[in-house]
Amino acid sequence: MSLINVLDLIGTFVFAISGTLAAREKKLDIFGAIFVASVTAIGGGTTRDSILGATPVFWIMDPNYLIIITVAVAFSVLFKKIVAQLRTTLFLFDTLGIGVFTFIGTQKAMLLGVPPVICIVMGTFTAVLGGVIRDTLCNDVPLIFREEIYATACLVGGSVFVILHQFNIDDTICTWTCITTVIGIRLLAIKYHLTLPKLD
Amino acid sequence: MSLINVLDLIGTFVFAISGTLAAREKKLDIFGAIFVASVTAIGGGTTRDSILGATPVFWIMDPNYLIIITVAVAFSVLFKKIVAQLRTTLFLFDTLGIGVFTFIGTQKAMLLGVPPVICIVMGTFTAVLGGVIRDTLCNDVPLIFREEIYATACLVGGSVFVILHQFNIDDTICTWTCITTVIGIRLLAIKYHLTLPKLD
Amino acid sequence: MSLINVLDLIGTFVFAISGTLAAREKKLDIFGAIFVASVTAIGGGTTRDSILGATPVFWIMDPNYLIIITVAVAFSVLFKKIVAQLRTTLFLFDTLGIGVFTFIGTQKAMLLGVPPVICIVMGTFTAVLGGVIRDTLCNDVPLIFREEIYATACLVGGSVFVILHQFNIDDTICTWTCITTVIGIRLLAIKYHLTLPKLD
Repeated sequence: MSLINVLDLIGTFVFAISGTLAAREKKLDIFGAIFVASVTAIGGGTTRDSILGATPVFWIMDPNYLIIITVAVAFSVLFKKIVAQLRTTLFLFDTLGIGVFTFIGTQKAMLLGVPPVICIVMGTFTAVLGGVIRDTLCNDVPLIFREEIYATACLVGGSVFVILHQFNIDDTICTWTCITTVIGIRLLAIKYHLTLPKLD
Repeated sequence: MSLINVLDLIGTFVFAISGTLAAREKKLDIFGAIFVASVTAIGGGTTRDSILGATPVFWIMDPNYLIIITVAVAFSVLFKKIVAQLRTTLFLFDTLGIGVFTFIGTQKAMLLGVPPVICIVMGTFTAVLGGVIRDTLCNDVPLIFREEIYATACLVGGSVFVILHQFNIDDTICTWTCITTVIGIRLLAIKYHLTLPKLD
Repeated sequence: MSLINVLDLIGTFVFAISGTLAAREKKLDIFGAIFVASVTAIGGGTTRDSILGATPVFWIMDPNYLIIITVAVAFSVLFKKIVAQLRTTLFLFDTLGIGVFTFIGTQKAMLLGVPPVICIVMGTFTAVLGGVIRDTLCNDVPLIFREEIYATACLVGGSVFVILHQFNIDDTICTWTCITTVIGIRLLAIKYHLTLPKLD
């Protein structure tokens, strides 16, 4: 199991916790929580794979994803207070998660021979669409359409990956530059409250 | 035409009526009603097939589904009072519907060589996702995330199917044990107001 | 590049503007606007292709769609006042758009060997589902479920296409009769405030 696999599962775990927190706010039951946690964690990659025709989608043949998500929901429910105190830690792992998801999605599209600009979109979809579906299911306008820079960090990170790849840079360097670019931009955005211009 | 086919069409008909009732509450027009009835009746199986890559999805090559749905909408509109009086009957057929849909979805995934735990998820998707999309379209938080045990009945029924199948039990027995398990749990849940614990 | 390609891109452009206007109403940021504009413009065709299994979906291998959409968003933001004054023009191009999209979707399904009645549904999906997803994302009950005749124009136009085709009428005649039927019905619906009966 590679480091990227481990980070992927960590990202899945943290995204599932964020889904559980949204489910709690809407007073859903345990099944509702597992469902919302699942779409948050794997909804982005599922949409990516459906659009690309990379079916069965990634979690069908690898039940580990659903197991991780169930464990994450159980953890959030059993250790409610601890999770509430972990806000900063969760934020950091969420940031790590979008970095890793951006890389995984961009790379998967590239391996399928998709044009570079669409690879970047697929990477961003992987990272952000789960949250979009979570908010839509919970009857909110998706948060990332209004909050601090989030998807933009993924778009930039994916672009960096694609550009470095065009110059035949070593894969490991492409990967980590992509992930750290996403993380760096997201952390700066939060620190300095950077937002995209709103339409008015 | 097998008994399962007949039950499948009955389930489709009843789910379409439930979609029409939701459309009426939101004061939609006839097209809106047919659309919402369709996603309620075939949205679960459509999502299942897209995720599994079993495309074109099941209703594309068999227009009977859309015809049944249109008839169900016409029936609900023309016999509004009768439908209103049939609440218990509709509930019983809805319960039959989720039993049959769970079986159909679980079996389809199994025939495609999907791992057992994911087969159970696919069966449950088939039975419940139509209602989830219906509620999301109608701008409500999905009912099944909060109401009496519903998806759980499907998960248990699907598990029973998968387990019996592992022991090489006769197909007919697997099928009907699955369907009656779903129906039994759902009826008990309603009778005794069983709910899953809510997150708080 | 054929005339249909040009009209397709015009339709995409106008649908993207309509998505941007919806995003402005919800006070989304630029990324939210591009996302909502994209689902409005290409969400219908994306759903069609996923359901049919025509993957990767149409815009994956042709980045022109996303480029046109980005230009449309930039145009709406930079020339806000002009766009506000163009309401009638935008309406006319939107009407042209649903005509062309209906034709494209119906024809694509037909070329894949889908039964005629489902071809009509696929054409209508192409034209109207983008707006449905736009409204769902923006947390509104989809407008076309209640407003003046819209999807019905597409259903009739698609039916005309399929029927003419059955009689081996020349392709060009089928195409333009389909498109002008959709446009004609939609214009009449607006002029005379024709609506479908509401469910009550």
